[in-house]
Amino acid sequence: MKIDGIPFRTLWLAEDGVSVEIIDQTRLPHHFHRVLLKTVDDAAIAIKDMWVRGAPLIGVTAAYGMALAARADAGEAALRAAAAKLMATRPTAVNLRWAIDHMLALLLSLPEDERVRAAYTEAARLADEDSDLCESIGSHGAALFAALWEKRRAAGATRLNILTHCNAGWLATIDWGTALAPVYKAAENGIPIHVWVDETRPRNQGAALTARELNWAGIPHAVIADNAGGHLMQHGEVDAVIVGTDRTTADGDVCNKIGTYLKALAAHDNGVPFYVALPGPTIDWTVRDGVREIPIEERSAREVTHISGKTDGGEVVAIQLTPDGSAALNPAFDVTPARLVTALITERGVCAASRDGLAGLYPERAK
Amino acid sequence: MKIDGIPFRTLWLAEDGVSVEIIDQTRLPHHFHRVLLKTVDDAAIAIKDMWVRGAPLIGVTAAYGMALAARADAGEAALRAAAAKLMATRPTAVNLRWAIDHMLALLLSLPEDERVRAAYTEAARLADEDSDLCESIGSHGAALFAALWEKRRAAGATRLNILTHCNAGWLATIDWGTALAPVYKAAENGIPIHVWVDETRPRNQGAALTARELNWAGIPHAVIADNAGGHLMQHGEVDAVIVGTDRTTADGDVCNKIGTYLKALAAHDNGVPFYVALPGPTIDWTVRDGVREIPIEERSAREVTHISGKTDGGEVVAIQLTPDGSAALNPAFDVTPARLVTALITERGVCAASRDGLAGLYPERAK
Repeated sequence: MKIDGIPFRTLWLAEDGVSVEIIDQTRLPHHFHRVLLKTVDDAAIAIKDMWVRGAPLIGVTAAYGMALAARADAGEAALRAAAAKLMATRPTAVNLRWAIDHMLALLLSLPEDERVRAAYTEAARLADEDSDLCESIGSHGAALFAALWEKRRAAGATRLNILTHCNAGWLATIDWGTALAPVYKAAENGIPIHVWVDETRPRNQGAALTARELNWAGIPHAVIADNAGGHLMQHGEVDAVIVGTDRTTADGDVCNKIGTYLKALAAHDNGVPFYVALPGPTIDWTVRDGVREIPIEERSAREVTHISGKTDGGEVVAIQLTPDGSAALNPAFDVTPARLVTALITERGVCAASRDGLAGLYPERAK
Repeated sequence: MKIDGIPFRTLWLAEDGVSVEIIDQTRLPHHFHRVLLKTVDDAAIAIKDMWVRGAPLIGVTAAYGMALAARADAGEAALRAAAAKLMATRPTAVNLRWAIDHMLALLLSLPEDERVRAAYTEAARLADEDSDLCESIGSHGAALFAALWEKRRAAGATRLNILTHCNAGWLATIDWGTALAPVYKAAENGIPIHVWVDETRPRNQGAALTARELNWAGIPHAVIADNAGGHLMQHGEVDAVIVGTDRTTADGDVCNKIGTYLKALAAHDNGVPFYVALPGPTIDWTVRDGVREIPIEERSAREVTHISGKTDGGEVVAIQLTPDGSAALNPAFDVTPARLVTALITERGVCAASRDGLAGLYPERAK
């Protein structure tokens, strides 16, 4: 997507043709800082310190990390060491593990002198593949938004109001994003879209990253407290909700950032469509009842008790919000039952949030 | 209520027997700072700069402001000037206007030399009246909690989990509070209560004031992001929700801090009782449909884009959360329809959130 008119991805090959450039996302939204990754160690730090985030972006960064490693030493021992180093950065990230295993198997199957070139080619292919997948989600979602807009315009509306929670934009992928891809496509298609951005406490990915993206793209938006969405829906100010997901069950339950469930309840109570955008690979065919079966990560209480931001002087500092001695609890995700989801938007099209709906789009997986 | 074992109200007569002391609530939760009000000007500043907050506390502060004014000059012209000065501090506060009009009418009906004594007596009576009213709400609510606890204990629970939104504690009244009064009473009665404290963005009255109160009272609690409550309810971690209200309609709709409606939806979806604690005077008998009829105040966007807290060095600073150039919207309240409210808890007892329920408790008002 574009930043002030210049096309960017979250990761790209640098001008020297071998190094990789990324955006240090920990410094957003207040500072835009590009970082050059020259070695596998650089790539490992970028993943570990969360300069890059989002499953696809982490995976592709690791793939390029293997290319950088191969460039330094394409021997089996060195590649295995590089894979181990990258794997240790975020041990529970499924996509990371998959990307590293995939690259290692590919490279070891080739003669040593073909490995560097193959590594760069494959890493680039993975990046393009993710971008294409997200763009497809965008096209399918934009068709839904176009139909909504026709109705709203006929009723006299001057803009289409979309509410989103957290950041499922291009910063979380290689390009386009998932939940925001339909927003970008619809804007490209001339739909006068306006986005309500849930700030998404406690980590504020909405206020920081989604607002930053929409700002760059010139799409009208307003940040709101997570508390405000229900009120806006009661008063007809939300035409649709769209969110991403970390994991969708075979029955269509959706695990996403904490607070998603509350917005789904409000959408349901007010007859507002609630859409979930997801890449097929995030469907977990082994799980059916998300509320009962998906364990929810509990993150540090400090994310609730403290928050970072920019002082008047431009310095980014962390401050304490709660009184000394008060405990905090920080569940990171919740599960929205399929009954509250109007439709799932995937790279293969739109379907009902149900076993039958998903089986229609992914017959080869739904056995 | 007690602070570290010492009984406090939010306002009390100072040791000199004529000045009034308050807690500067703008400095909570990080600093506990008492302020001596010696003149009507001091009282006006305390109200205007929100050192005191909450309708009953503002009203009583103004009543004592009239007493301080009378002490300086009990003549009609001086009292009228004092009333005008106090009225100008928060022109839309209904309770403030009522208290000032009430005091002025009372004092002007008396001989000048009886006015000072009568003013102090009446201000003290108003304070006691509010405290008694809140304590009654506490007793009625605690009976509900006791019944819930019996069931939960029989089912093997080790604590009663209550979720609350915003601050409807003693800091918002003279003593006891409204939504927190039943919590304090239940704790006094030996029920092992634990409170989930919604931080309540954007002004964070939960994280700041409710947590501070519970901390002082030694009641176990944990601050949570406003997004977390639905997830906790899905997993049986909330036995009841209790909130206060700024205004209840004759049909039982409840206007309260933004985000209350989302918690009511989640409570309803999970079979969790949703209680609203309210003093009878906050029932608006002229309004029926709260969602359609109650205008919602829109506050400054800066409350969303910026937040205050304590640095590591102990300094309280404001920081910016959103990127430069992103707009924000800040509706301050929402309306929870009566259909989502399990019961209303008033100083006269507990009733259904309906016209009939309220008419049963307030037959003289429900014509």
